[in-house]
Amino acid sequence: MSHGAPSLLDRLSLNQETLRQWSLPELADGCARAGVRGVGLWRAPVQQYGVAAAARLIRDAGLRVSSLCRGGFFTALEPGERAAALDDNRAALDEAAALGTDTLVLVSGGLPPGSRDLAGARERIADALGELAPYAAERGVRLALEPLHPMYAADRCVVSTLAQALDLAERFPADRVGVVVDTYHLWWDDTVGAQIGRAGGTGGAAGSRIAAFQLADWVTPLPEGVLLGRGQLGDGSVDLRWFRERVEAAGYRGPVEVEIFNPALWARDGAEVLAEVVRRVRTHVG
Amino acid sequence: MSHGAPSLLDRLSLNQETLRQWSLPELADGCARAGVRGVGLWRAPVQQYGVAAAARLIRDAGLRVSSLCRGGFFTALEPGERAAALDDNRAALDEAAALGTDTLVLVSGGLPPGSRDLAGARERIADALGELAPYAAERGVRLALEPLHPMYAADRCVVSTLAQALDLAERFPADRVGVVVDTYHLWWDDTVGAQIGRAGGTGGAAGSRIAAFQLADWVTPLPEGVLLGRGQLGDGSVDLRWFRERVEAAGYRGPVEVEIFNPALWARDGAEVLAEVVRRVRTHVG
Repeated sequence: MSHGAPSLLDRLSLNQETLRQWSLPELADGCARAGVRGVGLWRAPVQQYGVAAAARLIRDAGLRVSSLCRGGFFTALEPGERAAALDDNRAALDEAAALGTDTLVLVSGGLPPGSRDLAGARERIADALGELAPYAAERGVRLALEPLHPMYAADRCVVSTLAQALDLAERFPADRVGVVVDTYHLWWDDTVGAQIGRAGGTGGAAGSRIAAFQLADWVTPLPEGVLLGRGQLGDGSVDLRWFRERVEAAGYRGPVEVEIFNPALWARDGAEVLAEVVRRVRTHVG
Repeated sequence: MSHGAPSLLDRLSLNQETLRQWSLPELADGCARAGVRGVGLWRAPVQQYGVAAAARLIRDAGLRVSSLCRGGFFTALEPGERAAALDDNRAALDEAAALGTDTLVLVSGGLPPGSRDLAGARERIADALGELAPYAAERGVRLALEPLHPMYAADRCVVSTLAQALDLAERFPADRVGVVVDTYHLWWDDTVGAQIGRAGGTGGAAGSRIAAFQLADWVTPLPEGVLLGRGQLGDGSVDLRWFRERVEAAGYRGPVEVEIFNPALWARDGAEVLAEVVRRVRTHVG
C-alpha cells in the first residue's frame, strides 16, 4: 500500500444519475466490481430504497458516499413555501448524515414566478443558509452551494458563477458552507481559475471552501430544456485536466465525482459505461 | 418638434429577424407605418435584395439602419479559414457603410473543432480586431463586439460576459471598437451593472464603448439548440427597464433595438407583432 497521496482512481466517485439505468444494488455492486470507491447519491432513489437500507448497502459494498444531491430551492417568496423548503432541507441533512456523507449539494432555486429580482432571490439564499447552517453542523454535514450554468438562472439556480457562490458562502464559516466546482457549469468563465484559488483560501485544505468537485463535459447542440445534454468526459469543450490541477493547487484532495446526465449513456450497459468513465478519467483528467 | 432628448419611440429600432416573415420592402413599409424609425438588418436578406437597392429602400422609407448583423467568427486556427473570415468581415464593413450604419455587430466565434483553448480563441479575436479596425475606421463603421450568453461559448462565441468584451475592446480606441449590450445575453450576470458603467467610461457618450443596445426577454424552457427561444419583451425574467436606465446612466443615447428570435412571433401577422413590440417597449422599457 502506498503512503503517498491517494490516486485519482481511489478518489473517483460515480454520481448515480450518470448510470440512471442501475438500481441502487446494481450501483453498489457495479462500482465495487469496477474498483470505484465512491458514489454520489440522489434523494429520490435513496428514499425509495429506504435511507437506512441504502446506507447499509453502500457500506457493505465497501463504498463511501461522496455527496447527496440535493437540497436547496430557497428562493420562494411565499412564507409557507419557504418554511416547507427549509423543512425539506433539514430532512435532506438528516439523510446525508444517515448515509455517512459530509456533503449536501444545494441547488439554490430560480426566480419565483413573475419575479425579475435576482439580487433579492440571492439574498433569500443567504437567509436560508443562515437558518440551516447550525442544523447541518450538528449533523457533521457541510452545505455545498453549487453555482449552475447561467442558462439555468431563471428556473433553477440564480447562483451562476463561482464568485457568486463564494460571496454567499463566505458569510459563514468554511466548515459549514462550501461550494461545488462542477466543470459543466463553470468551464466558460475566464475568472474561474482565480475563483478556485479564492475558494482554496490561504489556510490550505482546512480552510478550503471546495466541498465537491464534479466532472462532466460540454457538448452541443443542447437538447430541449437543456437538462440532459451533458457530455461523456473527453467528448466536449472542457479542459478537465486544467480544472483538476486548479482545484488541487487550491488544496482540494477530496472525491472526484463524475456526474453526467445523458440519455445516450443510460441506454447502454451500465458496466460498459462505467468502464468507459474510468478510462476517460485516466485519459482526460489524470 | 421637441428640443429635448429624443423619446424612446424615436430611438426604437426593429431588428429584422424579429419579423422574419416580412420581406425587406414589407419591413420598410411596416416600420414606417408604425412610426418605428430604425431597423437592424442582417447580411443575408440584404445581399439577396441587393445592398444598394436595400439602402435606397430603407432611406426612401425615412428609416435609419441602426446596425448590421453580423461579422465575426474570428476563432479559426487554419490560416486559410482565418483569411477568409477577415475578407468576409471587410465585405460586411463595405455593406454596413453602403447601408449608412455606423455599427457592425460581431459574433466572435466559438472553439475550433477539437480545441479546448478558450484563452487562445479570445486572443485570435483580438488579432482580428487589430486587422479590421483601420479598414472599419476608413468606412466610418465601428466594430461592435457582442458578448453572447455562456451557453453559446463552445459553438458560437467565446466572449461570454460584458467584462470579457470590454477587455478586448479596450485594446483599441473607443470610436473603433465598441460592445453590444444585449439583455438576453447579459441579464443573469451580477457584475453587468458595473460593467455597463465601465463601458460608459469617464468621457460621457463620446468615450462610450456602448455601440448598440438590444432587447429581448428570457423565457423557459429553452428549445433544442437554444437559438430560437427568445421571449417577447415582458414575457420573461429580464428587468428591461433597469438595463435601459443603466445604459443611459452610462451616457448611451443611441438606438434601442428589439431583437427577438421566436418562431411564435414569425407565425403571426407582422403588423400585429410590431404593434405589440411597441406597446411592450412603452410598458416594460420606457
